[in-house]
Amino acid sequence: MAALLPISINPNPLAKKMSRSNPSRPSRTTVAIMSQDHPYWASVHAEIEVHLKQHILVRPPLSVSEPMHHFVFSAPPSPGPALCVAACELVGGHRDQAIAAAAALHLMHAAAVTHEQLLSTDGPKTKPKPRPMVHSPGIELLTGDGIFAFGYELLAKSMDPAQNNSDRILRVIIEMTRAMGSQGMVDGQYHEILTLCKQSRYYKYVCEKKEGGFHACGTILGGAGEEEIERLRRYGLCVGVTRAFSNRVEEGNEMETMEVVKELRSLALKELEFFHEGKAEAISSFLHLSSL
Amino acid sequence: MAALLPISINPNPLAKKMSRSNPSRPSRTTVAIMSQDHPYWASVHAEIEVHLKQHILVRPPLSVSEPMHHFVFSAPPSPGPALCVAACELVGGHRDQAIAAAAALHLMHAAAVTHEQLLSTDGPKTKPKPRPMVHSPGIELLTGDGIFAFGYELLAKSMDPAQNNSDRILRVIIEMTRAMGSQGMVDGQYHEILTLCKQSRYYKYVCEKKEGGFHACGTILGGAGEEEIERLRRYGLCVGVTRAFSNRVEEGNEMETMEVVKELRSLALKELEFFHEGKAEAISSFLHLSSL
Repeated sequence: MAALLPISINPNPLAKKMSRSNPSRPSRTTVAIMSQDHPYWASVHAEIEVHLKQHILVRPPLSVSEPMHHFVFSAPPSPGPALCVAACELVGGHRDQAIAAAAALHLMHAAAVTHEQLLSTDGPKTKPKPRPMVHSPGIELLTGDGIFAFGYELLAKSMDPAQNNSDRILRVIIEMTRAMGSQGMVDGQYHEILTLCKQSRYYKYVCEKKEGGFHACGTILGGAGEEEIERLRRYGLCVGVTRAFSNRVEEGNEMETMEVVKELRSLALKELEFFHEGKAEAISSFLHLSSL
Repeated sequence: MAALLPISINPNPLAKKMSRSNPSRPSRTTVAIMSQDHPYWASVHAEIEVHLKQHILVRPPLSVSEPMHHFVFSAPPSPGPALCVAACELVGGHRDQAIAAAAALHLMHAAAVTHEQLLSTDGPKTKPKPRPMVHSPGIELLTGDGIFAFGYELLAKSMDPAQNNSDRILRVIIEMTRAMGSQGMVDGQYHEILTLCKQSRYYKYVCEKKEGGFHACGTILGGAGEEEIERLRRYGLCVGVTRAFSNRVEEGNEMETMEVVKELRSLALKELEFFHEGKAEAISSFLHLSSL
């Protein structure tokens, strides 16, 4: 059976490097670093993890659920899930309203990563060191499909007549499908396999498509108005792309990359100015973290 | 650009053979045969096709949308979409209430078929003659992912405040994700690549997982009660498996296969006895067709 790993949504680059270099090792250290330095993000992370563990069970047929469990809990971090919760709270929603969507965002990300491993054998290499393949290509393909489906199921199941939240959940499903579909993730991945993404403008395009479409979910679930939704959507887009560019520093293009990061950070902070002073403190700390 | 093909949901085995043997040829003949002999199914088919054509557009980025268009409109037939509409009408719903779900069911099927082509190169061959691969494996993988996402989007977008149908749509999304996920389609496909499915009991298991989970959608959208939903779910399961077994006759195991088909037909008709005489005539004619 695959090792049962905690997810790692912490954007700490050291932790990320660790989890990438050996995806089959537990990343508890990540959580520990977060807990000390950033209790807010640690608590968000912990609640998403609990939700995922409650729902991603190893049950018959084991041949299908074990690889699914493995890929979900060994996926590298992405900013979407934690930002989803923080955005919901920023607009006055309760954390519970966003946890299922945050977990679904992690599942979408994990499924995309699982399928990307298959892409790395098709066309020019886009990642310098793809992770070693644990399962056969067929299992990776089917497991990714199963995780996608379960992500939408988890989200749809969070409907609650007492909260009268069906319309919001359907709107979030539409957001998520667009982010994952041919105008979003799929487009980004396609362009990633076509190019080596050495040029910043191509790299930015790929990152925007892959990272940028997921950031309205928490705001919608928290009951925000359209202006707040758009502000936090753009904030999330900037954070996601900043994050991807920050990781790129390791791969060269330092000067150009740092300039893009600086510009994106500035744009991101500008979006938060819309909110009352002090209210956006928690969510803005993520940006600070992600460009460490 | 990929040829723009009409979908073929007609279960006529001759038409199916044609569309399989040359998936890049238009299958208009299929529709013509249906129109003459079965105006009800022809009209259902035509409305689903119109809905798909309105929503599956070739638009930028063409590199992503063209293969998507191709795979959606060249997928071989499956009984799910037409039965979805018929079940909705049987329980007193209007056809419009089920068309988006029927189109989404076709998209799920088309995406699964697209990914299955990739599986046929992994492990023992499960189909005697896999279709020739038009696109690279990377494109097939990403296109399938994009089609899955769009299927859920199409369904979620069919929410209509005037109809107050959000709860029903969310329930249908849950049904569809389960049918596609690790307990449904993925499990069936996994077992299909593991075995050559020569033994009827394995083949039946695979068919039940792959074909059987999609048949409550139209009934839910038509506003049926739980008993009606369960009856038509089981009817759809029997029809789907009957259909798969009927096609298997060509591949040997004739006697055993015919026995299974006979038993399934009998079970399917039993489910329809629950409905007032005459009301289930349209939907029962599909069973008759599918075992031709």
